[in-house]
Amino acid sequence: MNADTPRQPQVGIIMGSDSDLPVMREAAAILSTFGVAYEMTIVSAHRTPRRLFDYAETAVERGLRVIIAGAGGAAHLPGMAAAITPLPVIGVPVKSAHLSGEDSLLSIVQMPAGVPVATVAINGAKNAGILAAQILGASDAVLREQIVRYKRELELQVLEKAALLECSEQQ
Amino acid sequence: MNADTPRQPQVGIIMGSDSDLPVMREAAAILSTFGVAYEMTIVSAHRTPRRLFDYAETAVERGLRVIIAGAGGAAHLPGMAAAITPLPVIGVPVKSAHLSGEDSLLSIVQMPAGVPVATVAINGAKNAGILAAQILGASDAVLREQIVRYKRELELQVLEKAALLECSEQQ
Amino acid sequence: MNADTPRQPQVGIIMGSDSDLPVMREAAAILSTFGVAYEMTIVSAHRTPRRLFDYAETAVERGLRVIIAGAGGAAHLPGMAAAITPLPVIGVPVKSAHLSGEDSLLSIVQMPAGVPVATVAINGAKNAGILAAQILGASDAVLREQIVRYKRELELQVLEKAALLECSEQQ
Amino acid sequence: MNADTPRQPQVGIIMGSDSDLPVMREAAAILSTFGVAYEMTIVSAHRTPRRLFDYAETAVERGLRVIIAGAGGAAHLPGMAAAITPLPVIGVPVKSAHLSGEDSLLSIVQMPAGVPVATVAINGAKNAGILAAQILGASDAVLREQIVRYKRELELQVLEKAALLECSEQQ
Amino acid sequence: MNADTPRQPQVGIIMGSDSDLPVMREAAAILSTFGVAYEMTIVSAHRTPRRLFDYAETAVERGLRVIIAGAGGAAHLPGMAAAITPLPVIGVPVKSAHLSGEDSLLSIVQMPAGVPVATVAINGAKNAGILAAQILGASDAVLREQIVRYKRELELQVLEKAALLECSEQQ
Amino acid sequence: MNADTPRQPQVGIIMGSDSDLPVMREAAAILSTFGVAYEMTIVSAHRTPRRLFDYAETAVERGLRVIIAGAGGAAHLPGMAAAITPLPVIGVPVKSAHLSGEDSLLSIVQMPAGVPVATVAINGAKNAGILAAQILGASDAVLREQIVRYKRELELQVLEKAALLECSEQQ
Amino acid sequence: MNADTPRQPQVGIIMGSDSDLPVMREAAAILSTFGVAYEMTIVSAHRTPRRLFDYAETAVERGLRVIIAGAGGAAHLPGMAAAITPLPVIGVPVKSAHLSGEDSLLSIVQMPAGVPVATVAINGAKNAGILAAQILGASDAVLREQIVRYKRELELQVLEKAALLECSEQQ
Amino acid sequence: MNADTPRQPQVGIIMGSDSDLPVMREAAAILSTFGVAYEMTIVSAHRTPRRLFDYAETAVERGLRVIIAGAGGAAHLPGMAAAITPLPVIGVPVKSAHLSGEDSLLSIVQMPAGVPVATVAINGAKNAGILAAQILGASDAVLREQIVRYKRELELQVLEKAALLECSEQQ
Repeated sequence: MNADTPRQPQVGIIMGSDSDLPVMREAAAILSTFGVAYEMTIVSAHRTPRRLFDYAETAVERGLRVIIAGAGGAAHLPGMAAAITPLPVIGVPVKSAHLSGEDSLLSIVQMPAGVPVATVAINGAKNAGILAAQILGASDAVLREQIVRYKRELELQVLEKAALLECSEQQ
Repeated sequence: MNADTPRQPQVGIIMGSDSDLPVMREAAAILSTFGVAYEMTIVSAHRTPRRLFDYAETAVERGLRVIIAGAGGAAHLPGMAAAITPLPVIGVPVKSAHLSGEDSLLSIVQMPAGVPVATVAINGAKNAGILAAQILGASDAVLREQIVRYKRELELQVLEKAALLECSEQQ
Repeated sequence: MNADTPRQPQVGIIMGSDSDLPVMREAAAILSTFGVAYEMTIVSAHRTPRRLFDYAETAVERGLRVIIAGAGGAAHLPGMAAAITPLPVIGVPVKSAHLSGEDSLLSIVQMPAGVPVATVAINGAKNAGILAAQILGASDAVLREQIVRYKRELELQVLEKAALLECSEQQ
Repeated sequence: MNADTPRQPQVGIIMGSDSDLPVMREAAAILSTFGVAYEMTIVSAHRTPRRLFDYAETAVERGLRVIIAGAGGAAHLPGMAAAITPLPVIGVPVKSAHLSGEDSLLSIVQMPAGVPVATVAINGAKNAGILAAQILGASDAVLREQIVRYKRELELQVLEKAALLECSEQQ
Repeated sequence: MNADTPRQPQVGIIMGSDSDLPVMREAAAILSTFGVAYEMTIVSAHRTPRRLFDYAETAVERGLRVIIAGAGGAAHLPGMAAAITPLPVIGVPVKSAHLSGEDSLLSIVQMPAGVPVATVAINGAKNAGILAAQILGASDAVLREQIVRYKRELELQVLEKAALLECSEQQ
Repeated sequence: MNADTPRQPQVGIIMGSDSDLPVMREAAAILSTFGVAYEMTIVSAHRTPRRLFDYAETAVERGLRVIIAGAGGAAHLPGMAAAITPLPVIGVPVKSAHLSGEDSLLSIVQMPAGVPVATVAINGAKNAGILAAQILGASDAVLREQIVRYKRELELQVLEKAALLECSEQQ
Repeated sequence: MNADTPRQPQVGIIMGSDSDLPVMREAAAILSTFGVAYEMTIVSAHRTPRRLFDYAETAVERGLRVIIAGAGGAAHLPGMAAAITPLPVIGVPVKSAHLSGEDSLLSIVQMPAGVPVATVAINGAKNAGILAAQILGASDAVLREQIVRYKRELELQVLEKAALLECSEQQ
Repeated sequence: MNADTPRQPQVGIIMGSDSDLPVMREAAAILSTFGVAYEMTIVSAHRTPRRLFDYAETAVERGLRVIIAGAGGAAHLPGMAAAITPLPVIGVPVKSAHLSGEDSLLSIVQMPAGVPVATVAINGAKNAGILAAQILGASDAVLREQIVRYKRELELQVLEKAALLECSEQQ
């Protein structure tokens, strides 16, 4: 494939407000690292309900295979996207102004039987990106191998820091 | 008006599941007491998102003036209805199986700026009905007078019970 | 009506302390946007209980049609106003110093059967103003149309921001 | 004093609802044990606000010296009584139906500066009675001596149970 | 393929204790409905840590493509499985004896950056099964079509119940 | 009484650590305003348990009539003082470093039957001082009259601020 | 040593009330399994503060090497014992009547710097017994070997149950 | 023993990330004060699961007698170490970014029956060090005597501060 050809996004990253961008950008960054094509935009369940409907309803035909949705407070975006699309939806509870994201977390994770949202930690957009890659990797040995390598790098980073700490803090 | 003529419902009562009916029926009962016509049905944000859209989008033209929406867990029904209709939406957090309704409450009350839901207590469907009557009563002196009478009856009931208690528990 | 004639306030905004003013002012601002006349003052349930009584008891005769009450901590102002007046009362849980407004929220929303308070999000005074307009709009097609327009503007703002984000963050 | 003469109550026990009676009766029982005269009745902040006002406003002149107020959910009774009377008010958070009394506790204890409520444990009406006796005992050596004896009895009961347990559970 | 040939499991369902079986069985049941082959067993992070290691380390080579892990209290099973395998891991917070599953939820969802667990609702094993099917369906149009049909059935069930309720509860 | 004669303290203010002083000083300040003599010192339940015992055991004979005890975290000082002395003990939950004082509050208020602590709001030392004055005022008409005046001043302050706000924020 | 000779208890198990016995007995049972001698009795921090003092102050000289203390609600027993004795104190938060043991847990675990309590799970008395054995085993290879065997048995029990489940639930 | 000879560490301090070092260093510092030899390093349950296994599995043979493990969020390190080693494991819940350490606390303390973790307060690494010393002191009279002295110093510090406060804040 020619490097200039824009590749078909496989992951759609949506967020309820542009104030969620600093958090949600981490999902995009890690997907880039894994070479997974994504699209990213704002879809507000409460202020643009029609856009939410259209986005979720056309996701399959537009070629998306996973949706990552971040929102805060009474966070309805991930659950409503999951209500409409058959694709797996990953929910990112964005830290809220007054309740530390506990409201965001419960609004996203406590979905009724029939409509799951794959919820990650509060502000855990990076993990949402990794999870999206793992989901794609469930049927893609090359991508899965990348995840194996990523985990090994995480391990090496810890080992280096451990060696450093053992030197500097020795009794 | 002939008593047999079905009156135009002014309040729409919706709930996410038929398991919410024992709670939500209290909203209907108190509206009947106040002589306010209502309609009641199931609309699931997660299992019937299109129905939710249609319901909320046609609410004004169908003559509804207030919507009461009850749901539990990751309770998105009241907020999504409020996203679509310009009518006031009253949210009833239905007690959930595992977190006592705290998830329902936060999912309903913590709406973002621009899209309010008038939230009542956990399982507070009776109060949702009273609030709907008060909202209609804001422009209807007869209905408001009914609410004044209702409050007086509440008062009288307490006074009677107080008199009884003072007799039976005297030192 | 002459533009100079002060109009009869339809919404009364009260708060427990002048420290709540930065939050509660947002209710006033959005009501101004909708052209709804309001009055705003301090009424403390705990420090001026008689004033609270007088305020709530005369609200109907003074022409108010909705009351918005904001308070923090053991927030009794909205519930006590609702105990006295037949008008719909909207409660704004103001973020408290030590428990992030969780105490304010529970003190306002968990009202007993018979006396509802229409509770909005923690610090959600703007939504309280919108809800007041929606309540008045339940019997006022012109005002309701304004709310429809307001929701459309919210939508347009999101669409613009979405377009911007899609440009700036393209892969 | 003739035993038949009804004595002037020194403690007023009030509760928001007759459903609180099984809990609040324990306050009465322990006051009887200490020989402290009390009166007990229902005063609902939300359903009988005028009665609350009258009760609290006349408490001093009627000879009361302490008020014990129990309520659940958005529990406003203790705080509103404390707003009106200069007497010390003891608040009993009654266990609520859905949030285990956490709402009752926060609604009672988190009072603003200027208006304290002496809060005891959830459903802690017995302790409210003891505290009322201690408050009266602050200026009454005889009553204080009774409390000393009461504490000694508690101690003896534990010692007896400890002896029993040591016998029955010996290794 | 011959119907008698045991098919290669694609989803591994593990749980920390046999007391979790009544909950976790729902994941198996829904996977059967979707025709997805699974294996199910007990793996305790705390009582069989070596077994956990072996299970997670050999998951890929044994042909698993998704792991569903349920646990309660200090629930370490999903997170530790996710630490070892590159496969997507779905975590089911099982309701705990004393804290309603809040401890299970936080122990599972609040994973550090680098190691996500796709968390579903408390006791949400059915949704874990659906999510596993969606993950496999991300690369399998036939399975995705089954999910579309499943969602349509959910919708139809609600519509039927709604019709029933509208009949029986008509004003 | 000569103004130079040190008066017998009637209220003992104790705190678990000198870090609690900025909070607890407010109790002292308001008692000074009421002209109630107090003593103030540090008594740590955990670091000076013998001192706690001595303090509480000698409180009556030293002429104290009320004890105010402030502590944070696993706050045992108020409850242990109440275990030893027959005097009324007021507990001030001091805001803790990591859990916002929720731990302090529960550790102080949830006392078992037999040993009450009169708990005020988190960091509510001022209210602890007022409550101590109210307790003394239960048997002292002059002091009670001071509390009446104090409440009136609170009322006047609110009325002034209300007038100011009505002027400055008029529509 | 003659089998009839009562052995010197090494672990002291205390609890705040005889109602804690059904929970705390599990600590005794597991210690018996490990052959560790213990004593068990009731010591109430709030109702028998002097007994608490004596118990903790004489613990070392009486030959105890670890104390296990269980209590509920405002649970001060473990922390006060730890304040007095230099021995390690294990705290068991006993499930409370109204707040599920969350108050017990926070009252026990959130100790200030200088005075630790080794806290186990809510109602985790069995684990308290195991931890006491591990503490003694830190200097006793025979006891530590017993713990190794105990852990192996736990493992075997899980493996057996796993085999059973794999048989009975095969697809 | 020659001062230059490195002593065999008796306590192993591990933490999930180098970001936990500022907290965990306090455990090391207090152990140094008590003259207890320790080792300190980073072991991440999630990023270096094999290292965790090796560390815990070889702990006894390397001569460790107590392990202190600190971690935040979904904190699995202490519990997993306790699953593998027969040594007593002390868990330090490190304050988390979004939930104040409540997630860390519950993830560490709510261990299932069979595998205890001796949990200290949020960020309570200093107490973890003291507890480790107490555990070693359970079989070491010299070390126990040091703890007695340490407690006496804590007492003296409070007495000094109390004297200072009594001077400076006298009425």
